[in-house]
Amino acid sequence: MTDADTQRTDAPSNEIPVEECYRLLRTQQVGRLGVNAEHYPLIFPVNYGMDHHTIVIRTSPGTKLTAASHANVTFEVDEIDPIHRSGWSVLVRGLAEEVTDAHGADLVRRTHDAGVAPWAPGEHGHWLRLIPHHVTGRRVVPGELPPAVDPRAYL
Amino acid sequence: MTDADTQRTDAPSNEIPVEECYRLLRTQQVGRLGVNAEHYPLIFPVNYGMDHHTIVIRTSPGTKLTAASHANVTFEVDEIDPIHRSGWSVLVRGLAEEVTDAHGADLVRRTHDAGVAPWAPGEHGHWLRLIPHHVTGRRVVPGELPPAVDPRAYL
Repeated sequence: MTDADTQRTDAPSNEIPVEECYRLLRTQQVGRLGVNAEHYPLIFPVNYGMDHHTIVIRTSPGTKLTAASHANVTFEVDEIDPIHRSGWSVLVRGLAEEVTDAHGADLVRRTHDAGVAPWAPGEHGHWLRLIPHHVTGRRVVPGELPPAVDPRAYL
Repeated sequence: MTDADTQRTDAPSNEIPVEECYRLLRTQQVGRLGVNAEHYPLIFPVNYGMDHHTIVIRTSPGTKLTAASHANVTFEVDEIDPIHRSGWSVLVRGLAEEVTDAHGADLVRRTHDAGVAPWAPGEHGHWLRLIPHHVTGRRVVPGELPPAVDPRAYL
């Protein structure tokens, strides 16, 4: 929680308590995985489910799987209404690990039971478990989001 | 475009051409800025507009502004329908620069005209210009997203 002060700089009064962050995470199905790869903080939309506080992601082989395994990653979920210019966002920081046969049967079963989507027939996804160690959330207040009518902005 | 092959590993047939990516970027108002800070690829939802191919972001002081200035950043925009399990996502890689009085009046005017939201009364946002040097997009195909009914998944 060493960076709590930094987070507060942005929105001191709109912070969401940690347990409410986890409740909000359970309300959505699509989030965005952040991984450092190719010299950039890459962002990938992914399906996910929850195994208690662990985020379970199903993904295809490639950049994000390679970069996420045993690395510092983030996971962002939000629900923002551009008409009413309000909503929330939750950012999880943690470590990700691919689930393989080396894991215990119970953990594999819990991972598969986490509510992530089945893929199209013939697809064989990989499973990632993202163990959070820092979770922050904030309410998006009206005025921070784009106007419903006026497409222009001036300082 | 040196990492085009890596991108293709994930979705060979669902790539979106670059000009279509820019068209899609102009259809949305909220995206997610990725910045490397505090040892993580942090992800922040932000308002944005477009000045031709430059992404204009208005933000408050804090972590993301400090980390984004003159750094490798990403910007992700998507539109994903969890019911129909389809949509698209675009990922921009580029460099960000804060717009200050040191910039020419024409550039400042174009930045302010880019269609980003005004903030709540009394707020004074900062402006970032994100200059893309690599843009990729892909269609999300049915089967990659969570099921509308069945909440469970098995390999």
